[in-house]
Parts: sequence; C-alpha cells; structure tokens
Amino acid sequence: MKDELDDLLKKGDLDAVLIVGPASHNAPMVYFTGPVHVDGFLVKRQGGPPVLFCLPMEREEAARTGLDTRMLDWGGFNQTAGGDPVELEVLILQHILTETGASGNVAVFGRMDAGHAFSVLQKLGQRMPKVQLQGRSDGRSPLSEARITKGPTEVERIRRVGKITVEIVAAVVDFLTSQRAEGNRLVTRTGEPVTVGDVKRRIRLMAAERGVEMPEGLIFSVGRDAGVPHSSGQDGDPISIGVPVLLDIYPCEAGGGYFYDFTRTWCLGHAPDEAAELHGLVLEAHRRALAALRPGVTARSIQQQTCDWFESHGHPTTRSDPKTLNGYVHSLGHGVGLDVHEPPAFRDAAEGEEELRAGMVFAIEPGLYYPERGLGMRIEDTVWLRPDGKPEILVDYPTDLELPLRPRRAPRKVGMRAAHRPLQQAQRAR
Amino acid sequence: MKDELDDLLKKGDLDAVLIVGPASHNAPMVYFTGPVHVDGFLVKRQGGPPVLFCLPMEREEAARTGLDTRMLDWGGFNQTAGGDPVELEVLILQHILTETGASGNVAVFGRMDAGHAFSVLQKLGQRMPKVQLQGRSDGRSPLSEARITKGPTEVERIRRVGKITVEIVAAVVDFLTSQRAEGNRLVTRTGEPVTVGDVKRRIRLMAAERGVEMPEGLIFSVGRDAGVPHSSGQDGDPISIGVPVLLDIYPCEAGGGYFYDFTRTWCLGHAPDEAAELHGLVLEAHRRALAALRPGVTARSIQQQTCDWFESHGHPTTRSDPKTLNGYVHSLGHGVGLDVHEPPAFRDAAEGEEELRAGMVFAIEPGLYYPERGLGMRIEDTVWLRPDGKPEILVDYPTDLELPLRPRRAPRKVGMRAAHRPLQQAQRAR
Repeated sequence: MKDELDDLLKKGDLDAVLIVGPASHNAPMVYFTGPVHVDGFLVKRQGGPPVLFCLPMEREEAARTGLDTRMLDWGGFNQTAGGDPVELEVLILQHILTETGASGNVAVFGRMDAGHAFSVLQKLGQRMPKVQLQGRSDGRSPLSEARITKGPTEVERIRRVGKITVEIVAAVVDFLTSQRAEGNRLVTRTGEPVTVGDVKRRIRLMAAERGVEMPEGLIFSVGRDAGVPHSSGQDGDPISIGVPVLLDIYPCEAGGGYFYDFTRTWCLGHAPDEAAELHGLVLEAHRRALAALRPGVTARSIQQQTCDWFESHGHPTTRSDPKTLNGYVHSLGHGVGLDVHEPPAFRDAAEGEEELRAGMVFAIEPGLYYPERGLGMRIEDTVWLRPDGKPEILVDYPTDLELPLRPRRAPRKVGMRAAHRPLQQAQRAR
Repeated sequence: MKDELDDLLKKGDLDAVLIVGPASHNAPMVYFTGPVHVDGFLVKRQGGPPVLFCLPMEREEAARTGLDTRMLDWGGFNQTAGGDPVELEVLILQHILTETGASGNVAVFGRMDAGHAFSVLQKLGQRMPKVQLQGRSDGRSPLSEARITKGPTEVERIRRVGKITVEIVAAVVDFLTSQRAEGNRLVTRTGEPVTVGDVKRRIRLMAAERGVEMPEGLIFSVGRDAGVPHSSGQDGDPISIGVPVLLDIYPCEAGGGYFYDFTRTWCLGHAPDEAAELHGLVLEAHRRALAALRPGVTARSIQQQTCDWFESHGHPTTRSDPKTLNGYVHSLGHGVGLDVHEPPAFRDAAEGEEELRAGMVFAIEPGLYYPERGLGMRIEDTVWLRPDGKPEILVDYPTDLELPLRPRRAPRKVGMRAAHRPLQQAQRAR
C-alpha cells in the first residue's frame, strides 16, 4: 500500500522515485496523481511528499491532484535543447532532480518510448554523476511492492469497475438468450445471424455509456477461436447453438485507472457433453483455487495444485509439456490493479514464489483448451484477499455453462433496457 | 512513407529497427502490424522483410498480419531467466536479434516502462557487443522520417476517422442547439441544466458506437476553462448562453491506429463582441496558415507568421513573452498519424526548421486565450499536404462561432438520430 512506500524506499536504499510519461494510461503516474490526469514529471523522495512538475498550460488540472505542484519552463528548456527531444528531457529531469534535491539511487518508472528512455537515461546518468538511475533490476521494486497490496479505497474502485463489468456481462447474456435458433445458428427475430462483431459492438457501447474504457480490447470468441486463449474473436463469426463462446473483458476506469478482469464461457441453447465435462473440471479448479487462497501460501503452489488437478484428469498442462497448445496452457492468474496484469504471477516459475498477502487483488482464471476440437473454456473472477485473510470474489456472477434461449415474450423490462438509459434520458432532454 | 524505410536505414547507417512493447496503442508496432494487434517483438533489417516474434498462444492473430511470423518459446526463456523480467526480456531480444542476423547499429522503438527499458537495453548491449543499440539520439530517426509522410492508404484511414469525428461534432451541435435558454443557462426541455459532463458522455457514447477510441481523452470546456488550453473541462460545469465553449477531440481507430484532431469554439445563442473579435482573428490566422502551407516552407515560418498576425493586433504570444498565459500561448500545429502529436512541430524553435513535404498530415490550430476574462478560442483542422503540393482540410466543417438555438419544433430527422442508429438496429434485432 502507498503508505508503505517510504519504508520500502529505505529498505531498497533508494533516495527517490522518478515518474515520467503521459498522464493517462500510465499506471505509475496515475498511482500518484489519482483520477486527475496531468502530463508532467513526478519526484517522490524518501520521507518527502510527491512533487508534480507540469506545464503552465496544465496548472489547473495539476492543482486538482492536491499534490505539491511546480511549473516547468518548458519553452526555456526547449530553446536550450535546440529542438533535440532527448536533450530537452534530460534538461527537464536534471532540473527536477536538482530542485527536489534527489541524489544517490533513483528508480525510474513510467510509460515511454523504449529507445527514447534508453537515450535519455544514459545521458542523464552521465550528466549527474551523483545520481544512480535504476530501472527495475530484478522484477521487484519499491513501487511494485507498494502497489501489490491495495488499500480500501483502491479495492472499492476495483469493485466499482467490477460492478459495471458484470452489468455489461448480464446485458450480453440477456441479449444472447433473447435471440432464437435457426438450425444451429443464433439469429435475430428478423432472421439475421448474430455475430461476434455484433456482440463486441454492444459491449463497447455499454462500456462507453458506463464511463469505463477497454484499452486492452476484449475477447469474445467462438469454438476453435475460444480454444486459442489470446484469440480475440473474428467480427464476422456467427454464434452457433451448442458451441462454446468465451467472453473475457477487462475494463478500467476512464483515462486509465483501476481494472477488473472477468471471463465466462457459455453454450447457447444447450451444452454438448464434452463441453460440459471440461467446464465442470474448470469450475472445480476455480473452486479449489479459491479454497486454497490465503496469506502465506505462494502463488506458485496454487498454480501447481491446478496443474495437479487437470493432469489427474488426463489433461496436458504447461508443466507436463511446456509447449502444449492443448489442455491447461497458461498460468492461473495475476494481480489486478492500475495494470490489468501486475504481480503476483500465479506461475510455476521463480516469480510465482511470491507469498500471498492480505490486501492483494488478483484474477483467478483456470481454463482448458482444445482448439482442434473447437473448444475453449475459462472461468475468471477478480478476487480480493481481505484483511481477515479470506478471499472474496469482488463481484459475484453465475458460472453456468448453458444459456437456454428464453421463450418469446414481451421485451424484458431490465436487461438491455438498462443499457439504453442514457440515451433515453437524452431523448427526454430533447 | 514506409517504402522509404530501407533507404532511410541505409542513410542512417542502421542495420535494423527493433520494435518492442504491447500490440495496441503502440504506434511503432502498429505501423508494421497494421490493424491486427499482436503482443510480440518485431525486427526489420535493412533490405529485409519485417519479422514478427510472438507467443504460440497468439499465433492466429499473428498470422493475420501477413508478416513473416515466428513463435517464441516464452516459457523456456522465462525458466532460464528465473522469473527476472529484465533478464527474460534480454534473453528474448538476444534470441530475435541473433535469429534475424541483426548486427551493428540497431534502433529501438516501442512503448515500455522507462526504467525497465533502461535496464533491459543496458544489459542487452553488454550481452551483445556486436550490436550497438540506439535510442532516438537527436529527434530524428529513420522510423519517424518514414512516418512523417503518409501514403494514400494512411491518408484515407485518417480521413475516415475525420469523417467520424465530424459526424460526432455535428451531433453535438445538433444537441446543443436543440436545447433552450433559461436566463443565461442552457437547459433541457424539462429545465435541467445541460452540463459539460452530459456532452462529454454523449461524445464518448457516439465514439464507441462508431468504433473509434479516445485514448487521450477529449476537451470540452467552458469560459475560463476554455482559456486554459489544456484544461479538459469540469463535468459539473453548466453551459451558459453567450459564453465560449471549446470542443477539441482527437479520436483514433480502435486499438490505437490513426488519429484525427479537430477543434471548434462556439457561443450558444449569441456571441459577445469581444468573443467575436477574437474568434475573427483566430479564423483569419487559420486561413492565413492554410494559404501559406506548401512544400519547402518550414513549419517554423508559419508559426512565425501566426505570431506576427496576433502581435500586430496587440496580443501577446510565446514569442513576445515566452511565459505568457494570455494571448497566443502554444504552437500552431503538429503532425497527426499513429500518434496524435508527431513531427513536424510548427514551433518557433529549432525543431520547427522541418521543411514541409507533400504527403505530410498535420493539425493547424491557432488560438487566443484570456482565462481571466473567461475566454478561450481555438479552431483546428487536420490538413493533408497533397502530392500536388496543395493543402487539403481532410474533412470540412463550418467554423461559425455563434450557434443560435433552434426554434422548438418536431425532432429533426438526421442529427442525433444518426447517433442512435446502432441501438435502433439492436432494438429491431430483439
């Protein structure tokens, strides 16, 4: 948590952290500036308050962060730099490190062009021999250590995004189940095939209506595509009765704030036996993982128990065959916060040795994949390890595989209607 | 243009470019992979085809790029790296540079954490003494040189986003002018104040409906806020009659593709004399800039003539007073492409010495700002310098300041209706 940062800086022998990069979709910056987005630079010294440096043009936004804010004479630096963007950034960073009195070990974070960062930090290091600039040297940093556990406000922000996520999922289910079957195809009342693209468009619209963003996209894939975990689905693909569809969405607060990560797999109409059997195993793996989550166990041990479970039922895993594209082909989960993937990693590898701690928030997402058989299954929830050490799914949602089509009747009053509310208000407003 | 890249690599004595970072919202990667988003690494050697390295899990997406695609044994590298993300990335980059035979000067691009990039590239450089890794050393790089001029396909993609942008703007105008005045406030038919937040929500919704994203946000600001160029506007602010509102939107293709950049300033109902006078000067600056755009002139010279124009009418500029927050306080424009701000920079500084060339696409955005007087004005269009050397505003839209409220009558058949089309289709689908 953020209040541990000074201790972590001390422990890491760091005098300061330096945050660079844009205001939005830049987790280390947003961690300090909160929901106010200001393009600038930030220095947080051990024991001192964060100081935000920004352009005079952005002074109003900057003030709203509540941080100690200072103006940068960007034009003056740019003139001195003679239009060289590397030199410009070096001059600015030199100025802010000097003005804040930072010296010794300084860790750098924030989104930037990789080559530009390399040039700037090399040159800055040469220019300031008393400053030792550090990247992340071994995957651990005071900032990621602080961020790995979430305070109550952070948890509530994640839960809020989760509630919106689940609202969207419920509306998708309502939409899908209110269509009809024509042969094996899901079609609209007027007989047009319902496609992956139709559903994705509805999801994007609902996300916009609800003020969340999907900067990393979304996955809605059918059959064989669902069997390839990272395939995001083809817009033109029709949805068939009895063929698994997989929805994985990971929205975040507008402008790049906290994420939520969620997956369900469904069969419209009915589920074939093979799908039902795999789904049952995935659901049980999910249940067993939840039951095992507690402070002090390693993330790795829970990945291992999941491999045990799937292997004992005859499925290959990346442990039994590291190159398999069938069976259980990914890790069990990952931290969720200002990045959709952050520590801890539930991997059967060194980085999985992280011990779970109260305050962590992570996605638990077991799955089974058989692309050549047109099958992929995943069930994912975002889970908070509460202060009392118990895991809590932040927002509950049913895990049913089968989605029976609803008998025709008058349009429902809740489901998709809710999605239109802002437009109805807008129409009233006219 | 992309077909110049080999010559530019040769000219820059570069053996290869190495692209790192995520699949989406990562301009250098998207420049090569096109609209297909694959998390991976890309190497393009001088004279050779781009080679994309990706995870087996993403093999399906990767194949759709049409690029030479190779699988990475991520798990194997990760095991060797012992969970250290810096070492993991070093191993992968070492592998792909070796496999493609890259040696000598290699320029690195792509979005990454700054400190992580610094650590990785330092270590990689030590590991591969025959490779000289280069960041952007002086603001110029073969990749930005190639990207600075756009081919016909790129221009049409930008224009397509522009058409959507202007559709959204037209719908906003239709919405605003169909409200009514209550005293000095713009209110809905039911008497509720129309706020900045209402308008922003409608814009986000329309963007989602039309399949564009606004990863950098948007600006819709009123009065004093409009006088601070980077203030994005307060959701709760009401809209008043006769007070300037400024709308600046810069959407891009979904997932991070080409941008369009557009600004208009309006007064609802009527425009006070002071606003009209400033607006007239800004419009004339815009017209004069357009008239001066042609291949061979420097971007700087057009910024200078704009300063001349505003100064000759008694307004301070950043040239007459570098620290001014009043008058003309920013540069005239910037390139628009896969980044919303890219070269050329229309600045009165060394980087403005760029000569304009046919094929460039840039935003031209003169403005005047008097925050203490509650005023800010900007008019911005995205302009293509055509192969015949003539500038073309990619999508036309009126520049009127005054937006008279429309007399009450039956709802219009076009405006906001268009915004609802996808929903109506959806409703039909039920």
